[in-house]
Amino acid sequence: MATSNGQSAVPSVDSSAGNLSEPQRLFIDGAYVPSSDGAVFPVYNPMTGSRLYDCASATKDDYERAIQSASVAFKTWSRMGPSAKRIIFLRAAEILEKYMETEAPALMSAEVSGTRHWTKVNAISGVGNLREAASLVSQIKGEIMPTDTPGTTVLVERQPLGVVLAISPWNAPASLTVRAIATPLICGNTVILKPSEFSPKNQHLVVRAMIEAGLPKGCLHFLPVSAESTPDITEFAVKHQLIRHVNFTGSDRVGRIIAGYAATCLKRCVLELGGKAPVIILEDANIDDAVEAVVFGSLANAGQVCMSTERVLLHQTIAETFKKALLARIQSVKVGNHEEDPHVSISGLFTAASTKRVQRLLNDAVSSGAKLLCGDVSASGPNLTIMAPHVVDGVTPTMEIFQRESFGPLVCLTPFTTDDEAVELANNSDYSLSASVFSKDVMRALDIARQVRAGSCHVNNPSVYIAAGTPNGGVGGSSGYGRFGGMAGVLEFTELKIISLGKSGVKYPI
Amino acid sequence: MATSNGQSAVPSVDSSAGNLSEPQRLFIDGAYVPSSDGAVFPVYNPMTGSRLYDCASATKDDYERAIQSASVAFKTWSRMGPSAKRIIFLRAAEILEKYMETEAPALMSAEVSGTRHWTKVNAISGVGNLREAASLVSQIKGEIMPTDTPGTTVLVERQPLGVVLAISPWNAPASLTVRAIATPLICGNTVILKPSEFSPKNQHLVVRAMIEAGLPKGCLHFLPVSAESTPDITEFAVKHQLIRHVNFTGSDRVGRIIAGYAATCLKRCVLELGGKAPVIILEDANIDDAVEAVVFGSLANAGQVCMSTERVLLHQTIAETFKKALLARIQSVKVGNHEEDPHVSISGLFTAASTKRVQRLLNDAVSSGAKLLCGDVSASGPNLTIMAPHVVDGVTPTMEIFQRESFGPLVCLTPFTTDDEAVELANNSDYSLSASVFSKDVMRALDIARQVRAGSCHVNNPSVYIAAGTPNGGVGGSSGYGRFGGMAGVLEFTELKIISLGKSGVKYPI
Repeated sequence: MATSNGQSAVPSVDSSAGNLSEPQRLFIDGAYVPSSDGAVFPVYNPMTGSRLYDCASATKDDYERAIQSASVAFKTWSRMGPSAKRIIFLRAAEILEKYMETEAPALMSAEVSGTRHWTKVNAISGVGNLREAASLVSQIKGEIMPTDTPGTTVLVERQPLGVVLAISPWNAPASLTVRAIATPLICGNTVILKPSEFSPKNQHLVVRAMIEAGLPKGCLHFLPVSAESTPDITEFAVKHQLIRHVNFTGSDRVGRIIAGYAATCLKRCVLELGGKAPVIILEDANIDDAVEAVVFGSLANAGQVCMSTERVLLHQTIAETFKKALLARIQSVKVGNHEEDPHVSISGLFTAASTKRVQRLLNDAVSSGAKLLCGDVSASGPNLTIMAPHVVDGVTPTMEIFQRESFGPLVCLTPFTTDDEAVELANNSDYSLSASVFSKDVMRALDIARQVRAGSCHVNNPSVYIAAGTPNGGVGGSSGYGRFGGMAGVLEFTELKIISLGKSGVKYPI
Repeated sequence: MATSNGQSAVPSVDSSAGNLSEPQRLFIDGAYVPSSDGAVFPVYNPMTGSRLYDCASATKDDYERAIQSASVAFKTWSRMGPSAKRIIFLRAAEILEKYMETEAPALMSAEVSGTRHWTKVNAISGVGNLREAASLVSQIKGEIMPTDTPGTTVLVERQPLGVVLAISPWNAPASLTVRAIATPLICGNTVILKPSEFSPKNQHLVVRAMIEAGLPKGCLHFLPVSAESTPDITEFAVKHQLIRHVNFTGSDRVGRIIAGYAATCLKRCVLELGGKAPVIILEDANIDDAVEAVVFGSLANAGQVCMSTERVLLHQTIAETFKKALLARIQSVKVGNHEEDPHVSISGLFTAASTKRVQRLLNDAVSSGAKLLCGDVSASGPNLTIMAPHVVDGVTPTMEIFQRESFGPLVCLTPFTTDDEAVELANNSDYSLSASVFSKDVMRALDIARQVRAGSCHVNNPSVYIAAGTPNGGVGGSSGYGRFGGMAGVLEFTELKIISLGKSGVKYPI
């Protein structure tokens, strides 16, 4: 099939896509290929520990070839009109929506212990963001500036950057892959996607949808890399002269490394890193609403969400009432092995190592004086990854559990007495991603929300809150900076160019 | 005098301000003070090499005290309404405008060998940017997002960042100091200003105008540092936990260091670094217009402007005509010692070391096959800093003079034959700040302008082009990134905060 704009034919899709029993290949320059040296790495089922399939591990040569191809494709893609781009994105949304119902549940279950609910969340967010991107194509506008020089016209245009490196994580494999590539592509950039080494098949679904929708050859490349080769390849790719921008969603440890590489060659990045979201519950809060939001915010995907509620700051006058209602509500949260019952709310944590990290944080808190109101620090399941929800009372800022991201099914309670103290506790963190305040007095809650250092601070809503087009992100420090969504994302993935049009006959005083 | 919003009295202005025969002190927490350890460094007149005065050299303790004061002042300044802020900025513009006529000519002449014309350029740009900032106060708007959840309201606000570190250079000491502080302040941030160690008195004029205009205590601090202490203090300040953002205008060498420090603590920066602006002259250009723009762009302030025309790319069919007209026009450019005649167009380069660097680049070019059409690589003046304009023909991309910023009064000519070759030559550089194209065919010039990698690419205008509110800046690499001016500056010096307002009674599927 030749497209109307003279692009080469849409490549045929890998028959192994979505099939867990076949190896996963790279996608470079419009073709599925093994890595240049034939290297592969195993992908495991974290719930059982069993080996799922082998994935090709891209080499520097593979990255070089992909970047060169993306650089060539940039010349035509960056000039393609908005209507043609929009049709591709709308088609991709349709296709991904279908795959999220047919293929994603099994992939999500196998690679990241994802429940049915989590697959649905990924579908809504991922498909929604493709449609949001489609709607942005006609909104990437320049400006005409007023000028003091009569007869002169000053244009300020938004231009695409060139080849963009996108590095996306395992925890929301469809949603965060769409986010990493959609706004960059729609702005006219071409993209090199490095998926997580834990979830290539889930993330490949998004690539497959884009290819089947007719994205021209060379615009998007898919290059998984083994854990061992990742540090070396990441440095190579971030520092590559043709890579103009880097986006990364993942840990703050790796975020700092990427920011450092980018600094040496003076490139901008968008980094969405960890979170340690506080939820402030004032004494006049609706307790049922607050409990509902804390349970959802703390336990959705077993707490493995960057916006997860990691610290509940409780006004001490309502602490006992809140705890009683919380413990009652947690009883109804279904915990179990999602492979036996895909409708459980909490299944296994990502790996056995994740469980150990959460257990260590809990033991440290208890030995420092915190008290478990529910949960016994144990884990179950074939690979010891399933943990029931824990409620930890009496958490203080000096405890590690207050400062380090847990990424586990925990509700940690810290008391306060004044609004100022609540703000101070909320801001006692290097993270800055999300937060919430609960109060029936919206003006009071707004005043607090404006003082909490975070990219989002919700009033009477959970800390886990996204919608297509909202500019989620951190405001520096361990949560990173920059925005993927909506017009704020367009500003990140384009650059301003001033073009003044001068008149003839001007003389300069020199 | 107590201001209406309860701020403490405006501090009295240092009687030594503007007086070259008295030492320069720091300005911290609303008071002029010596440095905490009494250290000073000498400031020299670069034209004569004579010592002008001693300037206090701020210590880490001084920075710590200033940052703490700025952090306290942030609490009230960030909440001050737009009208009160605007009045302060409009007053400061009036005051600075007066000083640019009374005190600036002598300071500019003494510290940076600035001609009368250069003082005037600084006045227009500096005062203009204060008025532009005043106009922005009521434009720092949030948005209300459409939402899929009925009964919910989603606000996206723009919030100030906190304490901002501003590091500004010597070459346009009034204009670039205003730029470093005005948009950050107007957005509600407070500012720590580190001026160049070469031009404290010029840069202090801006601080003085802000103080006299009624900027509240603690909002702006002035902390010069000696050259020897600068690396240590810069690292301390950039990495300080309370510094939320860094802006720097200067060399790409230092820009990379600052970006590296900022990366370790995941802070954003705005970096405006060097330039190597190409001017492309097509065969259908108006030769007189092109010559006029090249002379101004290459020789204004003796070429010591980041947007200076550093590479003239000449279509070979008009090369001879252009050279003849260029050499004739350069005859009328007045060169001399500005202290003897303040109306010369080209006076001394910044220091004797600058002259040596330019001479080295010229000698290297000639020994690599380039030809001098005018100029003899000599220098004159009491400290050997005055260089006449040089026209260098036959410059090729492999010569150092094509790749390294000269910051001297040079016109370097490189021939080309096709538009594609011109674009390729223009983009054969790690710099990306400014550029121009000359052609009578505006559509053809626009097509080229869009392909040149630069934050500005003018059509039939010089590469040196700024106006209040235009978002000048680089697009990565050795020119840095980010924008100071207009609304683009507001986006840099604020952060987005999503505040959703939820409704009661929502149940979550968990």
